[in-house]
This record gives sequence, C-alpha cells and structure tokens, in this order.
Amino acid sequence: MTQQASKLVIVTEKLLLKKIAKIIDEAGATGYTVVEAGGKGSRGVRSPGKPSVGDDFTNIKFEVLTPNRDMAVKISDEVAAKFFDDYSGIAYLCDVMEVLHAHKF
Amino acid sequence: MTQQASKLVIVTEKLLLKKIAKIIDEAGATGYTVVEAGGKGSRGVRSPGKPSVGDDFTNIKFEVLTPNRDMAVKISDEVAAKFFDDYSGIAYLCDVMEVLHAHKF
Amino acid sequence: MTQQASKLVIVTEKLLLKKIAKIIDEAGATGYTVVEAGGKGSRGVRSPGKPSVGDDFTNIKFEVLTPNRDMAVKISDEVAAKFFDDYSGIAYLCDVMEVLHAHKF
Repeated sequence: MTQQASKLVIVTEKLLLKKIAKIIDEAGATGYTVVEAGGKGSRGVRSPGKPSVGDDFTNIKFEVLTPNRDMAVKISDEVAAKFFDDYSGIAYLCDVMEVLHAHKF
Repeated sequence: MTQQASKLVIVTEKLLLKKIAKIIDEAGATGYTVVEAGGKGSRGVRSPGKPSVGDDFTNIKFEVLTPNRDMAVKISDEVAAKFFDDYSGIAYLCDVMEVLHAHKF
Repeated sequence: MTQQASKLVIVTEKLLLKKIAKIIDEAGATGYTVVEAGGKGSRGVRSPGKPSVGDDFTNIKFEVLTPNRDMAVKISDEVAAKFFDDYSGIAYLCDVMEVLHAHKF
C-alpha cells in the first residue's frame, strides 16, 4: 500500500486560492490541502496596491502530493508563470514522501 | 542533541480530532501539532450525509514526529483501519527529519 | 532555477511570534511562513501560569527555507537558547527541499 510521492508546497496570496486549485486539479493531482498562513517574503509588497504585510494570515499554503516529480514541477511551473510576476509566492518540493494510507492516490 | 526522526502527516476530517489525538498519545508519541485545513481529496463526499466540500477549512492536519518509522506506521495503520473506510483521509510519512531542539523527544 | 534548501520548522507558543520572526530576519533568511496550530507537547504546561492546553490553537508553527543547513541550525540554536527553557517548543529540520520558484531565495 505504501507508495513513493513528491510533496509540492506553494505559499502565495489568498486571493489566488481558486485559480491555483484549478491548476492543481487540471494537472491530475487527486487532492490538496490548504492552510491559512502569515509570513514574510522577499518582497515588501504582497500585491499591487496593498501595503507590506506582517503576520496577518493573508496568505495560503497549498500542499499537494503527486505520484511523481514531473507532475509537481508542471503545477509549479504553471503557477509561477501565471502569478509570480505579480504576486508573492514560493514553490518548493520534497521528493522523499511515502504515502501510507489514502482512499486513492 | 540532534536526533533523526520520522514525520507522520495525517489529513482528515475535523470531527476525528480527539479520537486521533488519543491514538497518537497511546502509541507513545511525545506530542503532535494540529492545524485547520481545507482542501480536496479523491472523494466527493467528506463524511456520511455531508456535501462535497471545497476550501472551507473543515479538515485537520496532524503532524507527529516519531523517533522511528515503526511508531509512525503503527499510528497510521490504526487511524486508517478505524476511520478511512468512513471518512476522508490520507496519511503520509517523511523519514528524513532531524530534531534540533525539544524539551523531550 | 531549482535550488537545494533546508526547511526549518519551529513549533512554539503564539506569544513568541514577533521575537522569533526577528531572529529569523536577522539570520538573513529571505522569508518565513507562520500558521496557527494546536497540539500537545511533552510538557503539561505551556507557559508560566497557564494551564495545560489541548487543541485550542494557541501555538504557532514557523517554516523557514534556508539556503543551507548552517543558517537553519543557527536560527534554531538561538530560538532554543532564548525561549525553550521557559516555553514549550520544538525545532526540526528537513534537509532535502528543492526550491522551484521564488521571487528571490
């Protein structure tokens, strides 16, 4: 039942939630987890017209388990290409996850 | 002071919080972290009688550091056996964590 | 564009948020993510005068991506030295992260 997986993490602005969820869906991932997050990035401004934010939890963090590295990179590339010029964001990967139990993965 | 560890992640429905916390305790883990989460899994229905959910943060994500893989698998097996037939859930593992500082681990 | 990184995770009490954020900033990290968390640690008491807490989300979890292990250890050492005698906390590291996209890392 155990299965190797990659975990893609995307931290970005909350207003992108639905658009990024759509990209993840369309890439074929079976699911994702989202949590509200605060934080600080390398930019002083989070989005056009907004002041610099501190720790007010206006960000979101996506975690997506993918069956392979390629799907994670594909999602990340599309998210970055569409949004990271205009919005704060980081995408990173951990390749050594092991899925123990899931309905379907 | 540094110590190798496994990190078990369980994402499931919020109503299982106390029951899963009890399983983690009884397995001998010294602690866990819980965050509220939204997301989408491979099932359209989260729990009996509930409609499909989107990103409304009705899930929880547990993170448990265990001193070895066996304890993590034991917790995961018990949680999956008890709940994953009836509730949404995924359990996955990362084996390459290193604990730097803790009161007791 | 891909770059290896370490991910430092610090889970501790919420009232330390600003002090820890300052330590992370001063260590030269380009950013961090914070989420609210509940949980249970190896201590029955979270901070002086407070009762034991269950899952009431009075903790915070920092995640910091650092370009190398040394910066992560430095942050962790300073946080632990300053706060972990008096407050609940754990710091752990994952050394196998890969940054796919970021404004600056």
